[in-house]
Amino acid sequence: MLTSYDNNKALFLGIDGGGSKCKAIVMNDQNEILGTGISGPGNPLHGIEQATDSITESALLALKDAGLAHIRLSELYAGVGLAGVNLPVQFKQIQEWKNPFKGLFLAHDLLIACLGAHHSNNGAVIISGTGSCGFSCVDEQEVIIGGHGFPQGDIGSGAWFGLQAVKQVLLSLDGIAEDSLMNEVLLTKLDCIDATSVVEKVAGKTATYFAQLANLVFDAAEQGDNIAIAIVTEGAEYINNVARVLLTKMPARISMLGGLTTRLKPWLDQQLQEKLAEPLSPPEVGAVLFARQELAIQQRLSVVQSA
Amino acid sequence: MLTSYDNNKALFLGIDGGGSKCKAIVMNDQNEILGTGISGPGNPLHGIEQATDSITESALLALKDAGLAHIRLSELYAGVGLAGVNLPVQFKQIQEWKNPFKGLFLAHDLLIACLGAHHSNNGAVIISGTGSCGFSCVDEQEVIIGGHGFPQGDIGSGAWFGLQAVKQVLLSLDGIAEDSLMNEVLLTKLDCIDATSVVEKVAGKTATYFAQLANLVFDAAEQGDNIAIAIVTEGAEYINNVARVLLTKMPARISMLGGLTTRLKPWLDQQLQEKLAEPLSPPEVGAVLFARQELAIQQRLSVVQSA
Repeated sequence: MLTSYDNNKALFLGIDGGGSKCKAIVMNDQNEILGTGISGPGNPLHGIEQATDSITESALLALKDAGLAHIRLSELYAGVGLAGVNLPVQFKQIQEWKNPFKGLFLAHDLLIACLGAHHSNNGAVIISGTGSCGFSCVDEQEVIIGGHGFPQGDIGSGAWFGLQAVKQVLLSLDGIAEDSLMNEVLLTKLDCIDATSVVEKVAGKTATYFAQLANLVFDAAEQGDNIAIAIVTEGAEYINNVARVLLTKMPARISMLGGLTTRLKPWLDQQLQEKLAEPLSPPEVGAVLFARQELAIQQRLSVVQSA
Repeated sequence: MLTSYDNNKALFLGIDGGGSKCKAIVMNDQNEILGTGISGPGNPLHGIEQATDSITESALLALKDAGLAHIRLSELYAGVGLAGVNLPVQFKQIQEWKNPFKGLFLAHDLLIACLGAHHSNNGAVIISGTGSCGFSCVDEQEVIIGGHGFPQGDIGSGAWFGLQAVKQVLLSLDGIAEDSLMNEVLLTKLDCIDATSVVEKVAGKTATYFAQLANLVFDAAEQGDNIAIAIVTEGAEYINNVARVLLTKMPARISMLGGLTTRLKPWLDQQLQEKLAEPLSPPEVGAVLFARQELAIQQRLSVVQSA
């Protein structure tokens, strides 16, 4: 077991900051993960300070987990993939952050997910976790489908499923939609007695909150509940459509990842299910691969400039 | 023209506080509206201080408009109807507010709308403005249908129509939904060039923001745009269902009100359109009727107690 490391140059931090948590790893040049750290939300859309705090905290936890707490963040390069930084404002905010690392290479979460899943710049990913999104990178052409956030987008995501559950239960309690197995489960889970108390509970809540309710839709759908089946079918059809658009780009591989994958995959189009390849590595490994790529480009450029 | 009033006892303030604005009137015992004042949002769900500030400001503006600026708020009773106070927490917060009036009689916005529309405690109203809701009061039994707020409810409301427009335009820009007349109109209105800039613009926005986009759905639907027609049809069908539930309560009259009424009414079920009666007075008049009722009850009670 490594408790110290004499060549920090070979170590990289890989960080994946999503809507509900931020995950960091320390990886050596043999692609071995030496330690892992998990902290709070890393999506700058919901607060830049929260995001940067989460990044720093997860990195420190990963070093500690690796028995490398004596190494300072300023000695290591970090590859950082963040949800939300496909938006220029968020990208700029993180770029301008006086970060604690030797260097920070910033990518959106989709690119690091894709690099991790395929160990290559040629591939596509469909993500369904707190949010949902499709992404392909083929011949250096990046295409993002969806990822529009909550509540205006992210159909087929955990937040979307949770919100649909709440909507349908409220309609049912009002006598407008038929009863659903979800009614009783949701009321119990939220410790509520009626529509009014449900509204008080969910008013103004974030995507992360609604995403925690996603499983009850799948539970009910798997028990044959019509309303839940309609929700799952609508969410799955959106993901099918995202995949269809991505496949027109001819990626070498396509994978699905994110917290809802296991539950959602059986509802997808059969042909798509067969096409989906297992991700080779998680996004935080993709973040390290990205940092290595970018550092190599930077070093080549500096060689060219000094020649 | 009245510029002063020697019998303040006959004057009442009627206040209707909604999600986007707060409207106050001063009314005399002849049911004449002497002055009107309009201020910011009056819905305590989005901040208690904002709501109470709006109430006070609208009342002062109404007195000024009536040429009665010399009368202090502490000399007058106010009937106040507020969106959101059907939720116990919000009701309590407003009740505990050290308000500037001689007395404040608090009701939810639906009750004052119903009292205003029918000049009676027996009737039903369907409201579609920033939010949407159905309400009936028959034999002192109040029933609320919907009014669950944004984004978990309020189908068929301005906020809901605006959100659907954004959703559909984003799907269309991604190549998942067919093109719509709304695409160009929305991009121009928001001064955006693509999906990413639309998301930056709308991320985290309130119901009031989305409600400002509702009209473009109706514009496109009236020009035969299929996607817009599907949205309007879904919204109208929800309002039809709300009406169906309300009509089972056998109200003496039913009316529709709120900022979207004119645009939405032609899309409703034909039989329902024929049943809808014009509101006799607006909600702020209902607020005065409510205050008079409550004050009369209070005075009868105090007579009984002192006897």
